[in-house]
Amino acid sequence: MPVNLSVPDPAALLPVRGVRLGAAAAGIRKPGRKDLLLVSLVEGSSVAGVFTQNRFCAAPVTVAKSHLATGAVRALVVNTGCANAGTGEQGLAAAKRICEVAAGLLGCRSEQVLPFSTGVIMEPLPVDRIADALPACAASLADANWLNAAEAIMTTDTVPKAISRRVEIAGRPVTVSGIAKGSGMIRPDMATMLAFVATDAPVEPALLQSMAAYAAERSFNCVTVDGDTSTNDSFILLATGRAELPKIVNSDAPEFKVLLSAVTAVCTWLAQALVRDGEGATKFISVSVEGGMNEAECRKVAYAIAQSPLVKTAFFASDPNLGRILAAIGYARIVDLDVAKVDLYLDSLLVATRGARAPSYREEDGQRIMKQAEINVRVVLNRGAASSAVWTCDLSHEYVSINADYRS
Amino acid sequence: MPVNLSVPDPAALLPVRGVRLGAAAAGIRKPGRKDLLLVSLVEGSSVAGVFTQNRFCAAPVTVAKSHLATGAVRALVVNTGCANAGTGEQGLAAAKRICEVAAGLLGCRSEQVLPFSTGVIMEPLPVDRIADALPACAASLADANWLNAAEAIMTTDTVPKAISRRVEIAGRPVTVSGIAKGSGMIRPDMATMLAFVATDAPVEPALLQSMAAYAAERSFNCVTVDGDTSTNDSFILLATGRAELPKIVNSDAPEFKVLLSAVTAVCTWLAQALVRDGEGATKFISVSVEGGMNEAECRKVAYAIAQSPLVKTAFFASDPNLGRILAAIGYARIVDLDVAKVDLYLDSLLVATRGARAPSYREEDGQRIMKQAEINVRVVLNRGAASSAVWTCDLSHEYVSINADYRS
Repeated sequence: MPVNLSVPDPAALLPVRGVRLGAAAAGIRKPGRKDLLLVSLVEGSSVAGVFTQNRFCAAPVTVAKSHLATGAVRALVVNTGCANAGTGEQGLAAAKRICEVAAGLLGCRSEQVLPFSTGVIMEPLPVDRIADALPACAASLADANWLNAAEAIMTTDTVPKAISRRVEIAGRPVTVSGIAKGSGMIRPDMATMLAFVATDAPVEPALLQSMAAYAAERSFNCVTVDGDTSTNDSFILLATGRAELPKIVNSDAPEFKVLLSAVTAVCTWLAQALVRDGEGATKFISVSVEGGMNEAECRKVAYAIAQSPLVKTAFFASDPNLGRILAAIGYARIVDLDVAKVDLYLDSLLVATRGARAPSYREEDGQRIMKQAEINVRVVLNRGAASSAVWTCDLSHEYVSINADYRS
Repeated sequence: MPVNLSVPDPAALLPVRGVRLGAAAAGIRKPGRKDLLLVSLVEGSSVAGVFTQNRFCAAPVTVAKSHLATGAVRALVVNTGCANAGTGEQGLAAAKRICEVAAGLLGCRSEQVLPFSTGVIMEPLPVDRIADALPACAASLADANWLNAAEAIMTTDTVPKAISRRVEIAGRPVTVSGIAKGSGMIRPDMATMLAFVATDAPVEPALLQSMAAYAAERSFNCVTVDGDTSTNDSFILLATGRAELPKIVNSDAPEFKVLLSAVTAVCTWLAQALVRDGEGATKFISVSVEGGMNEAECRKVAYAIAQSPLVKTAFFASDPNLGRILAAIGYARIVDLDVAKVDLYLDSLLVATRGARAPSYREEDGQRIMKQAEINVRVVLNRGAASSAVWTCDLSHEYVSINADYRS
């Protein structure tokens, strides 16, 4: 059961001028479910991408990076059910073949198509089934298809994830819409599972890339479900330029800042949605670490807490066994950390101060907060002015069930 | 259910001349179970220790380190049920008070007593109950008490862990006996949960310390259950010198090498026992990584695999979803790793070669091995001559149950 996350209202998902989406059921893993998405982009769109740092990066990621570098992207093809990772030369050929088929349908060059895959690793991509289903995707291309698109990229997700924002830039309405998938193997490293965000604002490509990196760093790179970084993580930011605005070419311009803020908000919502729908999640937990010497050490501490199986099972049980949080802070590898300065809060409840249980802390107060569906763990290191936050979920029986049964 | 591990045969546990052990039920957490251990050492014993690197190191660890530095250790006191960690100044006073009581009973100075605690973090140590039970420990001191001692330090362990070895040095019999506890919060970092190993060989203290460090590095520092490093990890190596041998003072001497090998074997057995009895474990998995540029990178890769919740749930399910192992290799942060050179084996079955599924690999073969209770994952990086191995267990429903219910 996702935590405070439900299927988006289709009416709240706004078309982005210049982007059309079409989905189909290719029977990649299971028959009869949507598992293939085609996104077509108007000519002249800018496209930016942030990709997994996993050395076993999947074949489609390798191909997408190389095609992205040629510029002039016109389409994305996304399949679920098979990651096409750990597949060697054969996998690269398969990803390229998908691009060729899509290019034939859309009348562009295959280098203008970016391929993406998600699903089981080390199994061959069923190229023929995908090629056979692509015409159905092309036939259903429409600009109002965002919910369909979000559904077509789900794997163990229980809820499609899609969101739109509308902002005004230079007096003109600008739309940002995005979708994402992922609920396990989530510990993005410079990117998330799969996320695609589009805007109709006109943005110069290099600037769009810096916008993608900024937004990823503050959204997808702040979540963890199980600490496993996927082979296929990709976040793509599209700007079609169809809004009637002068092209945004300067990162100091107010137009850039308004758009950056809207894109980051959409990415943050999507990243938190991944955690809310984390495999087996029953709770949404934000971990904020303040008072560090720098952001990096705050993030280390936050991730040590957010990834500890012992902390996560305590949240699942609503058990205020909060010494486990102190233990995680202690092994976060902050070499000169003075634990005698550390304070720990649950929401606004002071649990530990100067490294030890606070005299005012009463277990029944901790218990009450641990039962909530959303909890903020706040750590104050008291050694500097930097801060960082990450979002995670609890570790439940259901996580084990989902991952023990995933392929069966 | 521990994996191929049962209660030791008391007759196989050999007394160590100069070491007497006494246990009692102090009612620290649960009434009527042994939870307190006193170990008394003959005068002139050498003692060495390796301790947790967790910055939130527990009060007894701080006190034990400081008392160890004074030399002339005569006793250890170990309680289970309460870690006395995250307890501040009050915790330090509590640990010192326990040393005073034990010293009074044994007629030594309190600085000659090393205190150890394990159990729930951030709760106050019940000093009075421990002080009240220490006389019972002292009254029961005996050299044949190794199994009792192993039982007295258990927390979520389902099986007491104890082992002995006898070797011949310079024509004389020398005994090495050891006990350990721990099955969760196991990812030792320079030490394990709690392990105490004693020998009657005479060893110069600095040499004994190097022996402890060597053995820990090849045993307790090679295991992980859940990746959580405890606040209380301690490994103590004792040498009473009661065997009729000249003192071992030279690390090049054959006597040293024979003893080192016996101590390392005892530590390795104990470390593997921790994993075999890992919380919820149904399988014992060794991960060997070969062909690395250095041992450190091999260990990084081994730990990435051994700590991946996705890999561990696949083992639990006996599901040969082995692409998850490739993904873990990929995110182990070996920056210049060429995945196109990586080979992966399960036992002697070639699963992946040159970074992709091996043409000869058949899923039914993988399935057969995944069903075994003991499995070797072997990774060959093909970029150097170094190797490393770690031992871990699977991640089951039972792990979640144990850690969700631990305090209740």
